[in-house]
Amino acid sequence: METANPAVLETSVADAVTTGAELMLLAARAAGAEVCFANPGTTEMPLVAALDTVPGIRAVLGLFEGVCTGAADGYGRMTGKPALTLLHLGPGFANGIANLHNARRARTPIVNIVGDHASWHVQYDAPLTSDIHSLARPVSGMVRTIESTGDIESDTLAAFQSALRAPGSISTLVFPVDYQQHHAPRRDGGLPSVQSRRSFQETRVEAVAQKLKAGKSVVFLLGGGALSERGQRAAGRIGASTGARFFSETFPARTERGGRLPDIDRLPYFPEKAIEQLGTGDVVVLVETITPVAYFGYEGLPSLLVDERRLMTLADVAECGDAALERLAELVGADTSEVGVPMSRYAIPECALDPALVGKVLSNALPDEAIVSVEGGTCGYPFVTASASAARHTILTNTGGAIGQGLPVALGAAIACPERRVFALQSDGSAQYTIQSLWTMARERLPVVMLITSNRRYGILQTELRRAGSAEFGPQARALTELDNPAFDWLALASGYGVPAVRASTTRELEAALATALVHTSGPFLIEMVLA
Amino acid sequence: METANPAVLETSVADAVTTGAELMLLAARAAGAEVCFANPGTTEMPLVAALDTVPGIRAVLGLFEGVCTGAADGYGRMTGKPALTLLHLGPGFANGIANLHNARRARTPIVNIVGDHASWHVQYDAPLTSDIHSLARPVSGMVRTIESTGDIESDTLAAFQSALRAPGSISTLVFPVDYQQHHAPRRDGGLPSVQSRRSFQETRVEAVAQKLKAGKSVVFLLGGGALSERGQRAAGRIGASTGARFFSETFPARTERGGRLPDIDRLPYFPEKAIEQLGTGDVVVLVETITPVAYFGYEGLPSLLVDERRLMTLADVAECGDAALERLAELVGADTSEVGVPMSRYAIPECALDPALVGKVLSNALPDEAIVSVEGGTCGYPFVTASASAARHTILTNTGGAIGQGLPVALGAAIACPERRVFALQSDGSAQYTIQSLWTMARERLPVVMLITSNRRYGILQTELRRAGSAEFGPQARALTELDNPAFDWLALASGYGVPAVRASTTRELEAALATALVHTSGPFLIEMVLA
Repeated sequence: METANPAVLETSVADAVTTGAELMLLAARAAGAEVCFANPGTTEMPLVAALDTVPGIRAVLGLFEGVCTGAADGYGRMTGKPALTLLHLGPGFANGIANLHNARRARTPIVNIVGDHASWHVQYDAPLTSDIHSLARPVSGMVRTIESTGDIESDTLAAFQSALRAPGSISTLVFPVDYQQHHAPRRDGGLPSVQSRRSFQETRVEAVAQKLKAGKSVVFLLGGGALSERGQRAAGRIGASTGARFFSETFPARTERGGRLPDIDRLPYFPEKAIEQLGTGDVVVLVETITPVAYFGYEGLPSLLVDERRLMTLADVAECGDAALERLAELVGADTSEVGVPMSRYAIPECALDPALVGKVLSNALPDEAIVSVEGGTCGYPFVTASASAARHTILTNTGGAIGQGLPVALGAAIACPERRVFALQSDGSAQYTIQSLWTMARERLPVVMLITSNRRYGILQTELRRAGSAEFGPQARALTELDNPAFDWLALASGYGVPAVRASTTRELEAALATALVHTSGPFLIEMVLA
Repeated sequence: METANPAVLETSVADAVTTGAELMLLAARAAGAEVCFANPGTTEMPLVAALDTVPGIRAVLGLFEGVCTGAADGYGRMTGKPALTLLHLGPGFANGIANLHNARRARTPIVNIVGDHASWHVQYDAPLTSDIHSLARPVSGMVRTIESTGDIESDTLAAFQSALRAPGSISTLVFPVDYQQHHAPRRDGGLPSVQSRRSFQETRVEAVAQKLKAGKSVVFLLGGGALSERGQRAAGRIGASTGARFFSETFPARTERGGRLPDIDRLPYFPEKAIEQLGTGDVVVLVETITPVAYFGYEGLPSLLVDERRLMTLADVAECGDAALERLAELVGADTSEVGVPMSRYAIPECALDPALVGKVLSNALPDEAIVSVEGGTCGYPFVTASASAARHTILTNTGGAIGQGLPVALGAAIACPERRVFALQSDGSAQYTIQSLWTMARERLPVVMLITSNRRYGILQTELRRAGSAEFGPQARALTELDNPAFDWLALASGYGVPAVRASTTRELEAALATALVHTSGPFLIEMVLA
């Protein structure tokens, strides 16, 4: 990074803007961009050069584009601001789609910059030419190709405006390399008018208050900002006063937990259990979330987990659900004293690890203000259940089901919050999709603690095969759902990317490994948790 | 794999077809499918189960979808037959797009099967729902969602028919999980009528013959089947008789080389050199290839490497270019004696490795009928130049520029040709995109020899930055183009996936490493080549 005074540099660059690439970065910087997760190629070289002449945007290299887009998701969830990604043409963008799919479901603001062939070269269908818009549309709220140097500034600001419009979305700008290179006049299009979440609607709050006051059986389902500390505090008070029950979405983008907050656990994954938890009471109230549907369709089970006639909306996904909950607490006359789970430590027996024990050991070890990126069901559910009594922490989950998201999200969260400790509780199968994350963590010296659940199988798939009626797996089904023969050597893989690592098979070993990891502050640390 | 008699099993399954998944696999098997490169999820479980009840299709698990699609590309290039891929919904497909982009440019036949939500569940926009068609269209000649159990057989056969139609393309079938599960009646839609390449057009051959007989200066550019042994032999004879010059496409899907074939090297990558080689003579003749265009557009250089008025077509990409060359040799009265480069070994000094020496040492070491997957320019160009005098081998290159293709293509070629030795000459940066290939090679015990060019930078990007006028790189540009701090430990990474590996820094070390690798026949072997 440059150490010169940014303000001075900014002025000097602005006076002497010579390239479209510099103009885009100046506009992005003005709109709030501070980080660019990049995997550039030939058609992005002017932007790469401009990252050194326009100050204030930190470039972070990923060895694979899915690392970049997942990191942008983690960064955006923690800061509320879009990171840039810098990707190479259609195929480079394509490698980032899976984690953009997750970011779209998380409603994370991101601005992708995709370099393209020179505008006059596209027509010749050179080998790397492809239909970038068709690839980008399924994950982007806005896709635009910059059509002239005169559009660079306004298109960049429009991309930020679209990404930041509540509840947040992804913008994709395709930037031909000739416009990156050419002189581009600055026009000062002005900063994007950032629309934060809209105010809640009083009539909706009153309607829900009426149900509660009438003694109806009410279940709340919370997402988005309703899972902030403020939202959960209000929820706890409403619950204590009215008996209403509260759940988080099954896969929240971000939820605060522990530190004496109320225990608002996730709605279960499988539809039978979710339907059971949502119950047969009078009303299910949505707060910054959408109608709950089954993750997958199963014969004989409904797609909708709740009869739509039972649904009410307190705040939609673009509205302030936390403020709506506070107003609701007021309307129902909830007690103003705080309601929450006392902080406590679990007594841990000395024995082999199992998922429930992993959840408890990790809960015990969390320092205050930790961030935990959770991917994978084996240890993920037990940990979240256990961590209600831990120190205050933030949990980030896999919102869209495209696996390979937990490590990059942890990486992005660590860039966003250098003062907080970041953990990645991560299944082994899904870790492999974006294993290259380890190298960027090592290079950027990010103190992320990775806990890899090494059960050497795709556990969820074996469960699903059994649900589908396969009592015994044939040899090919077994081979397609087991990660053995050979098993991964996680210590060797970590070492290959410059990450220190240890293996833990027992509760005491895991406690010791976490203690070691927490004094290691100069970079990432990996713990392979061998489950019985 | 089942060891029961396939013929008997096939009959018994056909009589008792109970699921749509089984019906699809029977139809695919009848159309010639023998391998399925799979990374399945919940919506593909009936197909996973069916792989054990329908015999004859070998399932190969990839830890990441780009491994599967790249392997299908390598398999298809070597066999001419489509492999199946089995991918999980839109995000799983998306992870495979980059290597499908390369396969599309290689005109490799592939049939992708993408599981989807139950047909009645899609409307609820569950987390993993996305627009699969929008993602698939840019790389697929045919995209179709199976709309009923009655369509399974005909849609599967249509997918094979489309994929196999000359010159070859990719078909993508979206298969809702309920139709996979349900009983599906067999209709025997018949085998696809496979259209191989069309015959050449005599008038075109006569027109080119006239030019040659008139003493015009002629350069030939060969691709596709024109790079077969037959095509190259005819080219050699034409060249010897007429003085015409011959080049291969810069990135051929497959070319035969060595073993006393004529030396038909690749057209250079950078446009200045390519234009120089294509010269200013009278005619450039295309044989199973398209008009050569610059890989990237550069200011002041043309996109077309040849004035279109100089172009003639001997055979288009769907026609038999090798037969056309033979006919042309006949028309110009070429001598029938074989023309080729004598086989010889390079004298290798004992010294540090450089790219030219790597090419020569590898050429010396190639056993007869080797297959070499080449990705990365640093060692790729010098090797191909050197290998004209090696034993007969097949070269597979990165056809579409989406990097991360060399290792999966080698994997697929090894599955296709168990009797041949497969090498992957691979740059370090691009190897990282699909590093998970190593595990599948180890699991399937494929004797692939990987030679990783460890220069710890994106060499091509530093070259392009210099071309774009950056004499000195700033700190961020340097960080985005160098792969250091930390350097990868290739031996540790290989070990993490169960692959033995050694490091070589000198010519003698590389020779010794290759000798070790060649006696190792029970699985893959990795050589990190440390370049000065």
